Amino acid sequence: MTYRAPTQDIRFVLKELADLDGVLALPGFEEVSEDLVDAVLQENARFVEQAIAPLNRAGDTTPAKWNDGAVTTSPGFKKAFAEFAQGGWQGLQHEQEWGGQGLPKLVGAAASENINAANLAFSLCPLLTDGVIEALAAVGTQEQQSRFIPPMLEGRWTGTMNLTEPQAGSDLAQVATRAVKQGDGAYRLSGQKIFITYGEHDMAENIVHLVLARTPDAPKGVKGISLFIVPKFLVNEDGSLGARNDVWCASLEHKLGIHGSPTAVLLYGSGKGEAGEGAVGYLVGEENRGLEYMFIMMNAARYAVGIQGIAVSERALQHAMAYAHERLQGQALEGSAGPVAIADHPDVQRMLLTMKSLTEGGRALAYVAAAACDKSRRHADPAVRAKNKAVYEYLVPIVKGFSTESSVEVASLGVQVHGGMGFIEETGAAQYYRDARILPIYEGTTAIQANDFVGRKILRDGGAVAQGLALEMQATVAQLEAAAARGGAGADGLALIARRLAAAVAAYESATGFVLSSAKDALRAVFLGSVPYLLLAGVVNAGWQLARAALVASQQADAGKGSDFYTQKLATSIFYAAHILPRAESLSIAVLEGGVASQYAGLAVHA
Amino acid sequence: MTYRAPTQDIRFVLKELADLDGVLALPGFEEVSEDLVDAVLQENARFVEQAIAPLNRAGDTTPAKWNDGAVTTSPGFKKAFAEFAQGGWQGLQHEQEWGGQGLPKLVGAAASENINAANLAFSLCPLLTDGVIEALAAVGTQEQQSRFIPPMLEGRWTGTMNLTEPQAGSDLAQVATRAVKQGDGAYRLSGQKIFITYGEHDMAENIVHLVLARTPDAPKGVKGISLFIVPKFLVNEDGSLGARNDVWCASLEHKLGIHGSPTAVLLYGSGKGEAGEGAVGYLVGEENRGLEYMFIMMNAARYAVGIQGIAVSERALQHAMAYAHERLQGQALEGSAGPVAIADHPDVQRMLLTMKSLTEGGRALAYVAAAACDKSRRHADPAVRAKNKAVYEYLVPIVKGFSTESSVEVASLGVQVHGGMGFIEETGAAQYYRDARILPIYEGTTAIQANDFVGRKILRDGGAVAQGLALEMQATVAQLEAAAARGGAGADGLALIARRLAAAVAAYESATGFVLSSAKDALRAVFLGSVPYLLLAGVVNAGWQLARAALVASQQADAGKGSDFYTQKLATSIFYAAHILPRAESLSIAVLEGGVASQYAGLAVHA
Repeated sequence: MTYRAPTQDIRFVLKELADLDGVLALPGFEEVSEDLVDAVLQENARFVEQAIAPLNRAGDTTPAKWNDGAVTTSPGFKKAFAEFAQGGWQGLQHEQEWGGQGLPKLVGAAASENINAANLAFSLCPLLTDGVIEALAAVGTQEQQSRFIPPMLEGRWTGTMNLTEPQAGSDLAQVATRAVKQGDGAYRLSGQKIFITYGEHDMAENIVHLVLARTPDAPKGVKGISLFIVPKFLVNEDGSLGARNDVWCASLEHKLGIHGSPTAVLLYGSGKGEAGEGAVGYLVGEENRGLEYMFIMMNAARYAVGIQGIAVSERALQHAMAYAHERLQGQALEGSAGPVAIADHPDVQRMLLTMKSLTEGGRALAYVAAAACDKSRRHADPAVRAKNKAVYEYLVPIVKGFSTESSVEVASLGVQVHGGMGFIEETGAAQYYRDARILPIYEGTTAIQANDFVGRKILRDGGAVAQGLALEMQATVAQLEAAAARGGAGADGLALIARRLAAAVAAYESATGFVLSSAKDALRAVFLGSVPYLLLAGVVNAGWQLARAALVASQQADAGKGSDFYTQKLATSIFYAAHILPRAESLSIAVLEGGVASQYAGLAVHA
Repeated sequence: MTYRAPTQDIRFVLKELADLDGVLALPGFEEVSEDLVDAVLQENARFVEQAIAPLNRAGDTTPAKWNDGAVTTSPGFKKAFAEFAQGGWQGLQHEQEWGGQGLPKLVGAAASENINAANLAFSLCPLLTDGVIEALAAVGTQEQQSRFIPPMLEGRWTGTMNLTEPQAGSDLAQVATRAVKQGDGAYRLSGQKIFITYGEHDMAENIVHLVLARTPDAPKGVKGISLFIVPKFLVNEDGSLGARNDVWCASLEHKLGIHGSPTAVLLYGSGKGEAGEGAVGYLVGEENRGLEYMFIMMNAARYAVGIQGIAVSERALQHAMAYAHERLQGQALEGSAGPVAIADHPDVQRMLLTMKSLTEGGRALAYVAAAACDKSRRHADPAVRAKNKAVYEYLVPIVKGFSTESSVEVASLGVQVHGGMGFIEETGAAQYYRDARILPIYEGTTAIQANDFVGRKILRDGGAVAQGLALEMQATVAQLEAAAARGGAGADGLALIARRLAAAVAAYESATGFVLSSAKDALRAVFLGSVPYLLLAGVVNAGWQLARAALVASQQADAGKGSDFYTQKLATSIFYAAHILPRAESLSIAVLEGGVASQYAGLAVHA
């Protein structure tokens, strides 16, 4: 078994931290029982372990191949995607009205983690298809929805996001692809898009490209961008496939990682299609509101990439943990007759626990965010919906930024645990290190997440959400202190968590105060520290969730229901508090010193 | 130009921080003038920029190839090595009695950084040859020295270190290669060695393997290991090459990075040689003292790998800096008519300055260490020699551990600065990310450096060296405070450096106190934090050197000798103080919480 779904931890987080009960009680989830959720998670685990995970290395060693515009995916991918489609996995969290299963995002997040852990490169295809479905469901016409969504849910078609052009990466104001309206109401698109994940492949009958482009009279900048549906094959009235559209894959990129995922250069309007020159596209919503619509799928995709960070971390952790228990090297610190497993050495434990605690902390935080999303959509009380919407939107850039940056660290430690063997490609640890590196980049770099976080999630509400969460964290500190004072399971550890969490929350509040007070007069001071501030929020929020987990684990042990799982959870949380939470202090100082540092930063990079 | 030697910064560090004057005044360096050093550095820069750097990518894309035991190196490598040999670069810091140039290690360090930055994979060959020369010069017989050293200095032969076996990585007690004494006094070796860098190649006429092996009656463990010279071709009395020895390259590894460096599996004694079965080897020094001798070259190699960390960092920095100034994306934070260079964005500045300040801090620290090494060997006063020896040995694991861990972070940020382009292999940034990853592993993992640091450099002298350096750092803090109080160039920045350095030194002293007081009763508590403690020492020591640099830069500006270089140096030092030095606080907390955390760590990794 190359990967085993962490079902026990997933269940623990769902039930003990992310309020699965509360989510299942929401209007619309009446038919979703806890038993059903358990069954879905079990079946999901079985499927990805058996059908998807074994293809991970083949995707790395045998990347997708381009030949005259056609792309052949890695060995086994096409068959696996058919099984994925047949299992109904694409529809897991989409509405039943389109043929989906309508499960909570909370459950979808867990399933998404598993498949991404099993095979990151493979899973990008359904990930992007999810985003296209979500965007069309939100802003497509009913005709667009009924024409395009069901085939995607069935896994017959897949979807892509087309934002980037060579001159327009993070800066979408520079998008130059043209869209000219035709007499029939459709548009003809021409231009070049790059970095299009699964922009061409052989796993589906059709590909639904969502494309940002400009109409001839559109305003400059991001306010002149419109969103279009451009199918690879045009779709007849009866849903059957028609003429080949004028969108072509010019080449695939040669990448550091995720080799199994074809990253396409797409040419629109090169004149080779069966439907005449210019790619036929259909406007989504209104002209010039494309960026707004794209953000619907961007937000879903950003959250999903955060989940990918947790997924790669879990996979790297499992690989390193297995090796550390197999590999015999060196005597025990206290002396031993012969070599011991390296998992017995303190620094290997430090590495494994850094990996494990970052992974489990990131997971807990992301699932709590998913629950907030479910409540923001379905709770009966508008005030509860609004509160959860604010919390979810606050957490999305944290989940994306923190989990993906963590995944690079975790995968790097995974290599290190293997020693020299980690550097040998056949070992497999290096793949995660290469794969993880894209995660802090695509769907908005960490800096873009930090801009969103500071600008829209902190400054816009004057830090209200942040402050509300800080109060809840302080309540958790008080609970930890009380539990520690009572003695019982892990009391000294709970006390450690309490003091470190209290210090971290204080550090976060200081930094938030600085951001709020400096935004008006010292914007560079704020933004020199915006990524440290975002990561600080991640360190503290994930630490808070692990602190809550430690309380549960300690209570279970006190109640005589202790188990290896609870022991490990408590110990992992204690480690996080000792080794990861203290990062809050240094990150906070970096933010707070921004006033002076930002006056010199520009001088140091300009020759 | 793919790489430009950072000659201005190297000169600054040599003269202002590493006491080049004092080093050149040492006995034995009478003929080495500052002009000569400058000339060597200039010629070195010209050579590596023109002859070595352009081969870096070819080494990555066209790795060395194995065919029936023979290894063909990457395109251009053989010719470049001939030019390297002809230029006399192998002999730079070796004794003149063997044909070397006898320059200080301080100068050798700079030359070594340049060639490693130009091409890490290429430079591993001379790096290991240096180690073999150093070991033979120290413990070889005169006959061994005169037979093997001059051809290596001339670049006709190269050298390797053979430690690792499949079952014996970091744990050399498990070395099993056998060496049986023959009637003629030579030994016959049999066994398998792995991970042998440049263990086979086509760049030199002969290869001198230094091999750890066990005689039949040797004691178990590390006290039964002996060191042998095993040449690929036996050497006749007149120095000409004789029979092909029974050592063969069975295969090359497929690695994450440094593709241009052939990593060999070597078989000793498979019976195919022209000199009969068993590889003919010559004992170095006495039987069973091999590990002690190997440490002579290990220490040189560890320092050299630290230099490699700085080298890769510098290369990644130059790549990212150039891109950040070329790439136009987004408006200026304060608003702008059109897109600006991304180097203008605060978070790109943060990334570039993290890269730059870690690189320059690591360089300053490593060169100061080299100067201490020179003084420890040559100073007329035995007390000064002893003091410098202690300082150098204290700094070696820091230079190795801190610079190499930093290089992974720096190379990762280098990818991030490039955004999506960073993930495309053709961009080149990804190569540094892959190459750097071996540096915290080979020649002793970071954990091994931390063990050495805690066990031999802190506990053995009761923290005396650490304490002595802390006093010097506090003196620097006082100088910074005085300079800040005087006003003048960068006064607010100097004040920032002063407060952050003071806090970091205090954090380091707390952690040192914990290590010293816990070593007896809580060894696991110490070693759960040994890597954080080592990195803490690195953060503080490098920060101290940058603080000294800031003082010089500020003084120059006050004296009307300001320049872009000094402005940048001051600004870079301020950034390090604001963003990197605060890591001291969090690392120190992780060490200090070791008492409780270590009681739970084992529980969390054992199922």
